[in-house]
Amino acid sequence: MNRVYNFSAGPSMLPVPVLERAAAEMLCYGESGMSVMEMSHRSKDYEPIIEAAEAQLRQLMNIPDNYKVLFLQGGASTQFAAVPMNLIGRTGKADYVVSGQFSGKAFKEAQKLGYDVKCIATTKDDNFDHIPTVTPDMIRPDAAYVHICFNNTIYGTKYSYIPDTGDIPLVADMSSCIISEPVDVSKFGVIYAGAQKNMAPAGMTLVIVREDLLEYAEEKMPTMLEWKTMAENGSMYNTPPCYTIYVAKLVYDWILSLGGLDVMKEMNVKKATLLYDYLDSQDYYIAPVKKDSRSMMNVTFVTGDADLDKKFASDAAAAGLKNLKGHRSVGGMRASIYNAMPYEGVQALVAFMKKFAAENPKA
Amino acid sequence: MNRVYNFSAGPSMLPVPVLERAAAEMLCYGESGMSVMEMSHRSKDYEPIIEAAEAQLRQLMNIPDNYKVLFLQGGASTQFAAVPMNLIGRTGKADYVVSGQFSGKAFKEAQKLGYDVKCIATTKDDNFDHIPTVTPDMIRPDAAYVHICFNNTIYGTKYSYIPDTGDIPLVADMSSCIISEPVDVSKFGVIYAGAQKNMAPAGMTLVIVREDLLEYAEEKMPTMLEWKTMAENGSMYNTPPCYTIYVAKLVYDWILSLGGLDVMKEMNVKKATLLYDYLDSQDYYIAPVKKDSRSMMNVTFVTGDADLDKKFASDAAAAGLKNLKGHRSVGGMRASIYNAMPYEGVQALVAFMKKFAAENPKA
Repeated sequence: MNRVYNFSAGPSMLPVPVLERAAAEMLCYGESGMSVMEMSHRSKDYEPIIEAAEAQLRQLMNIPDNYKVLFLQGGASTQFAAVPMNLIGRTGKADYVVSGQFSGKAFKEAQKLGYDVKCIATTKDDNFDHIPTVTPDMIRPDAAYVHICFNNTIYGTKYSYIPDTGDIPLVADMSSCIISEPVDVSKFGVIYAGAQKNMAPAGMTLVIVREDLLEYAEEKMPTMLEWKTMAENGSMYNTPPCYTIYVAKLVYDWILSLGGLDVMKEMNVKKATLLYDYLDSQDYYIAPVKKDSRSMMNVTFVTGDADLDKKFASDAAAAGLKNLKGHRSVGGMRASIYNAMPYEGVQALVAFMKKFAAENPKA
Repeated sequence: MNRVYNFSAGPSMLPVPVLERAAAEMLCYGESGMSVMEMSHRSKDYEPIIEAAEAQLRQLMNIPDNYKVLFLQGGASTQFAAVPMNLIGRTGKADYVVSGQFSGKAFKEAQKLGYDVKCIATTKDDNFDHIPTVTPDMIRPDAAYVHICFNNTIYGTKYSYIPDTGDIPLVADMSSCIISEPVDVSKFGVIYAGAQKNMAPAGMTLVIVREDLLEYAEEKMPTMLEWKTMAENGSMYNTPPCYTIYVAKLVYDWILSLGGLDVMKEMNVKKATLLYDYLDSQDYYIAPVKKDSRSMMNVTFVTGDADLDKKFASDAAAAGLKNLKGHRSVGGMRASIYNAMPYEGVQALVAFMKKFAAENPKA
């Protein structure tokens, strides 16, 4: 077995101790006599697993008691519809910040569903190379919520601040930065995140929602998208993605064993700094994102030559550094360096970048 | 490690060779250098897995070319909303057969969404102890579809026939009998099934839909529930439940290696016959389901004494026969004996039933 460094934007690397434990427990979990995959979600074997997952996440993120934690299926893309269906009833309209592809998709989904939504800020004209400055005066006073995507996986940008939306609930898609560093949950009305970047394999979406926001759901909406129904049933209105929740719990175990999100942030800053410092020290590679908007999780760069970019991703894969090709919609390169990417992986990447630059002079 | 016989209705037993292979490949799949959990869904490592899963399922079920196969998230419960949202546009109304709890939930969900739906047959007054006889004259001639649940997990009943709905598409929830025996897919417009009973861990729902039925979706519906969008994107409009699909593929491998669905049916008939023959041979236990409606997958029985029922489930668990308690809404006992339950498990159950009856005479 020869494991590679996997820079995939998601699904992405998981901590080796998590994979080892999942493998060891595959045929028999504890005294249960069965795999976690085989457990009834309503059994005495499984219930402690989902309860521990929630308790550990609450501890990790310091989630206040007046927030519900939901483990759902469907992906963050499902929440693009669920967010307006659950919240717009508060006032009848909602505001969106479009800072990249997924925040754009969230906005379009709300439009498609026929809602009164407004894009209050975007950096589209700058090819999303930075995060817009959102100030209270931009927000419609009667907006039901303001929606943002906190970290843009594709462009490699992240909010360096939490927008002040006053009394209007702030809703954030945190799919690609969840549990990468501490965040003040109380500043948000809703936080949601697909699991497959920093938490677990694909197939689970975390929703953290302030209790008072559970009262505004549409009547004629799919029951499975109703946060209140899911909250009242402890994420077990139907069968939850039990095994994915179990792997998420193993990931939470791993982070807690390392010291929690403060330590995780320290490790992530160290990795990102190594890569950005190298990018800033040379001129072979260009990092398109403005410095105040740089993501710690997704680092984008280009050579300025599409053929060289292609060769880079291909040569890197051959050297055991996989999935460095940028998103198909933007090209170039992207190194996703989530929690589970070891520092050594980023060191290996920087060493490869230096070697590639030396061996492939530009025309 | 001491594995039990797990009679859970779902999530439920998986074949040991599947679990062993998943464990062996957990840290590194083939030459990929990573776990399947860590693979980008759009990578050369993962694409052959989802493609093989579809090809193998098509082979197993003999799915005609004019049907699309979708691997989605959300559970069959999500399809309760997706079915009317995708199909009702055909004519504006739909007919439902209510033969148990989940078909009732499907009907209620369509009602909640405000659609013109009619329950054309139900066995509710008989406590769902048999499957209704559905004849063409019951169906509204302008129904967009007729919805049935082919096997009722909770009550332990199953259609012994495929209702003749003429030109009106028949939509069947097959969550608890999918790939347990051959079925003529061409008789159905849509077949859907949650994975966690006979296919994989929870977190994936299979939808098999005839191509001409992709044209009737509502405009204002969540994109993630649109079958056409999912079909056009090969189930990859967003990140699919990659690892669950991989385990499903391992299950399909296992069934194919045994000889396909004909062999699976033979094995399932043998198991169910052993249990039903014993039930019919004695009078300590009562099997409430009428003989022509008996399920091969979920076998329900009671002692007629709620305290004895409780003791049965508890003593059985202590003897390594777990999750025999009936659904909380009906009580009694239920033995779910899906594909992965070995014949020896049913033998052990019958032996335990005899011993329990002898040692616990009724008052």
